Amino acid sequence: MSTSPRIAIDAMGGDEGLAVMLAGVARARRANDGMRFLLVGDEAQIREGLKTHPNLSAASEIVHAPETVAGAEKPSQAIRRAKTTSMGLAIQAVKSGEAGAAVSSGNTGALMAMSKLALRTMPGIDRPALAALLPSLGENDVVMLDLGANTECDTENLIQFAVMGAAYARSALELERPRVALLNIGTEELKGTDEIKDAAAMLREATHLPMNFTGFIEGDRLSRGEVDVIVCDGFSGNIALKTAEGTARFVTDLLRRAFTSSLRSKLGFIISRPAAELLRHHLDPNNHNGAVFLGLNGLVVKSHGGANEIGVANAIGVAARMVRDNLTARITEDLANFKAHQRPETHTA
Amino acid sequence: MSTSPRIAIDAMGGDEGLAVMLAGVARARRANDGMRFLLVGDEAQIREGLKTHPNLSAASEIVHAPETVAGAEKPSQAIRRAKTTSMGLAIQAVKSGEAGAAVSSGNTGALMAMSKLALRTMPGIDRPALAALLPSLGENDVVMLDLGANTECDTENLIQFAVMGAAYARSALELERPRVALLNIGTEELKGTDEIKDAAAMLREATHLPMNFTGFIEGDRLSRGEVDVIVCDGFSGNIALKTAEGTARFVTDLLRRAFTSSLRSKLGFIISRPAAELLRHHLDPNNHNGAVFLGLNGLVVKSHGGANEIGVANAIGVAARMVRDNLTARITEDLANFKAHQRPETHTA
Repeated sequence: MSTSPRIAIDAMGGDEGLAVMLAGVARARRANDGMRFLLVGDEAQIREGLKTHPNLSAASEIVHAPETVAGAEKPSQAIRRAKTTSMGLAIQAVKSGEAGAAVSSGNTGALMAMSKLALRTMPGIDRPALAALLPSLGENDVVMLDLGANTECDTENLIQFAVMGAAYARSALELERPRVALLNIGTEELKGTDEIKDAAAMLREATHLPMNFTGFIEGDRLSRGEVDVIVCDGFSGNIALKTAEGTARFVTDLLRRAFTSSLRSKLGFIISRPAAELLRHHLDPNNHNGAVFLGLNGLVVKSHGGANEIGVANAIGVAARMVRDNLTARITEDLANFKAHQRPETHTA
Repeated sequence: MSTSPRIAIDAMGGDEGLAVMLAGVARARRANDGMRFLLVGDEAQIREGLKTHPNLSAASEIVHAPETVAGAEKPSQAIRRAKTTSMGLAIQAVKSGEAGAAVSSGNTGALMAMSKLALRTMPGIDRPALAALLPSLGENDVVMLDLGANTECDTENLIQFAVMGAAYARSALELERPRVALLNIGTEELKGTDEIKDAAAMLREATHLPMNFTGFIEGDRLSRGEVDVIVCDGFSGNIALKTAEGTARFVTDLLRRAFTSSLRSKLGFIISRPAAELLRHHLDPNNHNGAVFLGLNGLVVKSHGGANEIGVANAIGVAARMVRDNLTARITEDLANFKAHQRPETHTA
């Protein structure tokens, strides 16, 4: 039974409330009994909640936070309450070294702003990125970044995202040499913006890094399982992620409409319910939970606001793997390697 | 029986060949017996093909084109063969006024390049845009533009796309005052690039135009039927369109996998086949066929490369409506209106 660094849990964040957060923590702990936690939030409520999770008490310490960041709160407001909110104090625990990572289901904008301010970007990284896991037809999920932390990105940003995304895929997906692609509007070398073309040219040269750069990928192939990491600017990444979510919902809505359109269809649907369940399971965001802010001096995982117990446990699992693999150090090392090997002629656009 | 301007058909373009193109033309003609056509391509082959479509002969004239643009041909190469290919001569017929619009299922890049070169952009339009119809949960399809004609777009481009998209929706969807939104990574006024924020500010003022500007829309709501026109730069539009296509395929692939996972599921699937057919019908690109190049001095419709007879007929229907509604004149009028009403303070960024 190894004792890994503790994970700080923003116990009050998210739409589902404290009980679901604690149930998720307890579930994560059942899967890995070396885990220890800092539960950050209202002490009395947490103490009460722990009564139903006897396996957690010995593994947890409570950090009292008198306030909670609201779901609709502006990041600029939330920042001012960093010393009193459960979210702020969970991030603080990462900064002070009391915890190896923080997990929150709370307000994404606030979490991003507070994390950036408290943890600062890593040496060699200009901007942090938000990375998430998407379902695919392949063996594993796909890492995609940036998903909206940055509206505009230059060539250097894209290269740094590729290095960070590959390090994250090695840890979260346990791949040795993840396949990395740049999101573009065509696969030919001449397609896309100058930033993307230049980033591709430089990544093609970076054969010494523990990744396999495969070139460009178009929006219609994101879920085919052909690559492990998809790199993009935050604007198109956000558009692609949300379009994929919306389209999956659109198709399942159409399906529901079609299946309830006649008695015969309803009967067929009831008989094939296990198949529909399989589909639902595969698309359920709880099974792909845990978006990560990469590029900070400390690990912060964003769990879906509406995550259930399984989703929270998955997000904690992502945090634990990153801590175990010392992701921040890996990224630093890969970046140093990339810079050391950069050939002078690839510096120019 | 009115005689509307003729539609030039690139009879040789597309993956499905001449027979499918002619079947699509014949189907369009059955739906509207006022239609007349210029069939552009190999004269002997067309003459042979017309034998099975007696309703077409009287309504058609053949324009012989000795060559065909290949599917993988570079636009720069295709341009040089504008005078000898079926695609080039179909566009030429629009330029000379012999036809009111051209329809091609051929190579998109070549069609766009040849159309731009032959027809030139309209006065007041800086760049043409590619617009298409997407399926939605609402009463009608949704117009989306630009889908990749322009990699980067400024504020003026986005405003012009909004005006053109609204005019197209009034014609293709037969709406009086289409709801228009800008694709963005959030719905708050502060979100997104400066180009998008400035375009939104100017469109909010344009209440005199025959459109209802509703603000920003995010990627997850494209198919909800809440707006009729979605405006975006060509990069994110292309990413969103392809991501939507890819995700729809991904979900239906998962569904197929799930439904064939057990005998019980297979049985359920067979019973509920009409429901699956309904879904397939709603998502079938042939039922939403007809992407349009807007902003040129002439109308050009791109039919899907793999369009079947129904798809080709739908693309021809789109072309016929645009001709009937004199779309180019409508756009010119709306643009003039927009400029006349522009308040001085909204001119600056």
